[in-house]
This record gives sequence, C-alpha cells and structure tokens, in this order.
Amino acid sequence: MKNFKLTISYDGSDFFGWQTQPGKRTVQETIEKTIQQITSVKPHLQASGRTDSGVHALGQVANFKTTSKLNADKIQSALNANLPEDISILSVEDVPGSFDANRDAVSKAYRYVIRQSRIPDPFSRKYSHTVKYSLNESRMREAAMAIVGTHDFQCFETDWPNRASSIRTIHYSNISRMGDWIWFTVEGNGFLYNMVRAIAGTLIQIGREFWAVEKMAQTIASKDRNSAGPTAPAQGLFLLRVNYNTPHDQPQNPIP
Amino acid sequence: MKNFKLTISYDGSDFFGWQTQPGKRTVQETIEKTIQQITSVKPHLQASGRTDSGVHALGQVANFKTTSKLNADKIQSALNANLPEDISILSVEDVPGSFDANRDAVSKAYRYVIRQSRIPDPFSRKYSHTVKYSLNESRMREAAMAIVGTHDFQCFETDWPNRASSIRTIHYSNISRMGDWIWFTVEGNGFLYNMVRAIAGTLIQIGREFWAVEKMAQTIASKDRNSAGPTAPAQGLFLLRVNYNTPHDQPQNPIP
Repeated sequence: MKNFKLTISYDGSDFFGWQTQPGKRTVQETIEKTIQQITSVKPHLQASGRTDSGVHALGQVANFKTTSKLNADKIQSALNANLPEDISILSVEDVPGSFDANRDAVSKAYRYVIRQSRIPDPFSRKYSHTVKYSLNESRMREAAMAIVGTHDFQCFETDWPNRASSIRTIHYSNISRMGDWIWFTVEGNGFLYNMVRAIAGTLIQIGREFWAVEKMAQTIASKDRNSAGPTAPAQGLFLLRVNYNTPHDQPQNPIP
Repeated sequence: MKNFKLTISYDGSDFFGWQTQPGKRTVQETIEKTIQQITSVKPHLQASGRTDSGVHALGQVANFKTTSKLNADKIQSALNANLPEDISILSVEDVPGSFDANRDAVSKAYRYVIRQSRIPDPFSRKYSHTVKYSLNESRMREAAMAIVGTHDFQCFETDWPNRASSIRTIHYSNISRMGDWIWFTVEGNGFLYNMVRAIAGTLIQIGREFWAVEKMAQTIASKDRNSAGPTAPAQGLFLLRVNYNTPHDQPQNPIP
C-alpha cells in the first residue's frame, strides 16, 4: 500500500467546492474518479480541508492510499492527461503511510484578491473581487495586522455546526498593492468557515473609510458576526498553500 | 447624429469571434444588442477589424452613429451595466462624424502569449498556449526581428478570399520572457488572416530548435504557407490596441 501526497491547483469557478456532494461537480469527486480510471480502484482522497463553491486553489494538498504499482511521476502525468483543464496536479510525492493531509496540516495560507476600478475587467472577473470605491491600502494594512496572534475569531464565523473552539492563531497577515490590485495574504494554524472572506469584507469597509482602522480589533473583541463586514465573494479567494512539519515536507518559499 | 468611438476589452473564450454570424454568439452582435437596449435603435458597430473565435482583445476599437442624446460617459456606464461580464467598454469618446474605426486605423498591435511548462495551469489555460518543449527565447527574438519591415507575408496567410495584396509593414516585433512566460508582441500597418498565429507557430518551432533562426527569413522569401509553422491556437492571441492618426486620437503609451 502506497500513500501519495498531491499538490493541486484548481480554478474553482465551475465547481461546487472541494467536497463530494450528490449530483454536484466537485473537485474531490472529479479527482477520485480520475484516480479510479488510472488505478481501477476509487480511492478516498483526503484534503487538508474543504474549499467552498467558487474558491480557487494554487496549492491545495490531499492524499490517497493505493495498491497501484504506478510511481509518483506516472500518477502525476496520468492524472494531468485525464483530468479536466480546470484542475492541475502540481506534484505527487510518495509519502509514509502515516501522512494525513488533514490531520498533519500545521498551517495554511490564503490570498484574497481585490481589484479597485469603476470599469469591469473580463479577464479577472472570476479571479478577483472588483470594488468601485477608492481603497486606502495603508488603513487596510494596519487593520490586517490587528488579527495577528491567537484570538477567538467567532466574529468571522458564518453559521456552521459548532466547532469545539473558534480560537485560532494567525502568524502572518498583510496587504499588498500594485496599481488597481490589492491583495490580502494571511497564514494561520486554521481558519473557521468563511473566515478569510469575512475578514476581507471587513478590510474593504475599513479601506473605503466607512469604518475606522480600530474597528478590526473591536470586531474581534465583540465576538459578534454582525460587527464584521459582509462575506466577500468566493471568486477572490485562493488557497495558496498548506504547510506540514512531517519530515518529507518540502521547505516552502516565503510568501511573496 | 453623434459618432462614438468605443475601446473594448473582451475575453474571446465564449465568442465565435467579433463578426455577427447567424445563430452564433459574437462580440459585435452582443454589443449592438446592448446599444439597442440603451438607445432603442440597433446601430451598425464598425470595428477596426474582426477577431477570430477564441481570440481576446485588450483594446479593440469600434464606432457607431446614433441620434441618442446620451453623452459618452452615460453610454459607457449603461453599456458596462448591461453587457455580459466577458465584454468591458474601457472608454467611450464622442468623435467627429468622419471617424471610421476600420478605414482610419493606421496600425495595430497584437500579443501572443506562450507558457512553457510540462504541467497544465488551470488559470491561464484560456489565455495562453502551453508548450511542453524547452524554448530558447534568444533564438525566438532574433527570428521575430526578421519580420520587421515591408514584406510580402503570403507565407503566413491561411486560405481566405484573395486580398488585393499580401504586402504589409511591421514596425515592431519582439519576444519577452519572465520565467515560464514568453510573449511575442507585434505592431504593423495591417495583418493577414491568421498571420500573427502563423508567425507565433513558426517562432515556437525555432524556439524549440526544430528549425534554424534563418528559417523565418527563408519562409517569408518562399511565399509558401507550407514553409511556415502551424497556426498557434486562438486562446494565446490578444489584440492589444489600434492606433489612429486622427486629431482626436489619444497619445498611446509605448508597448511594454
């Protein structure tokens, strides 16, 4: 029995998210079926976590176990040859049987991409959120930095079956800007349902000077979802990468 | 009667090109119908030239005449509010009645985008041509420069109702590279049907060292389509801009 770790990029536009749901096109189901084509057995593909409908991934990680004799390179080329064009397998690694993409993930990085313009752009419409208001990125950066550390992030959690805890640790949170493009990059040990999109929605309210910079810290302290901004749309969100501490994990490049 | 000049960006992926064809979704028909919604009259929209099925535009230019009382800003915002998301009107200018987007165009610039990788990329699949071979961009640049000047470009013309002449003047032709991305930018007084894609296909054959750099000049001299490389796929091609010498034309930025 081999255990393969996949690093996966997908355009979330035409998927109902990662997780298999009856009658819906999902990333998990699509990859599982393609693995079945190649190895004759339908595997269980365990991701680091689900992504929602319309959310993209540049570095989702998942693993599956198989009795197939194919090596990692063959698995990768066979998957890429047979998968639809909106999914790409960036790497396949033969990892120890104990590796579990969900349980062993120690942190994740997301990016939320905002475009500030009054004019729509056909090429980025599925890969960013266009905001017509003028955005002050210095204010947004200051507010983004306020989420770093260990906090109860209940204020950014949308309705969801109760978790044991809504306390998470954010290691990195920053805003970058180039021309009309503003992006929010955040890395942490875990994220609540819709958390990154709710933070992005709050940052936009602060950037357009509808709210003060202090609103971010106040919102966290309030533990009240109604205190935060709206959930920003799915198409601006990218899962950038998932980090593992297991010995086989590749050293990661710093976030650009 | 007013005459409006539109600068238009479109994602060509889901269009059968610019020109109206019965039963097909085209850019021209889509914009004409939207102008009709706004002004109550269906205009004739005259473009600088057609683009093929799947080809993109960052700066197509077209004009139409109307008795509408709406000013240029209102036309632009009404069009962008009503057009589908794969078309955007970048600017609308109120121009003299004599302006004709086709007849008055003095030059056009195109870009062909190539991605060199063995691994597919979901995000650029519709906006570039992925080549698995290693490409030598110095060779490609040298070959690209060989097309500058006034030549008979019959060798790059696909079957098409005979034109008066296949002689065209190319003012600028170059190759740029950043990492896996290689792009060919070309500006000239006119282009034959499929000409840019046939040149791109020839440049790829030279870049992968299947052909010598000299093949480009030999191909032009041969006037034989069979001597050139294959027509590169539509999804890598972008109409960048159209230049006019008319007094109302905006000064253009240099090509990046």
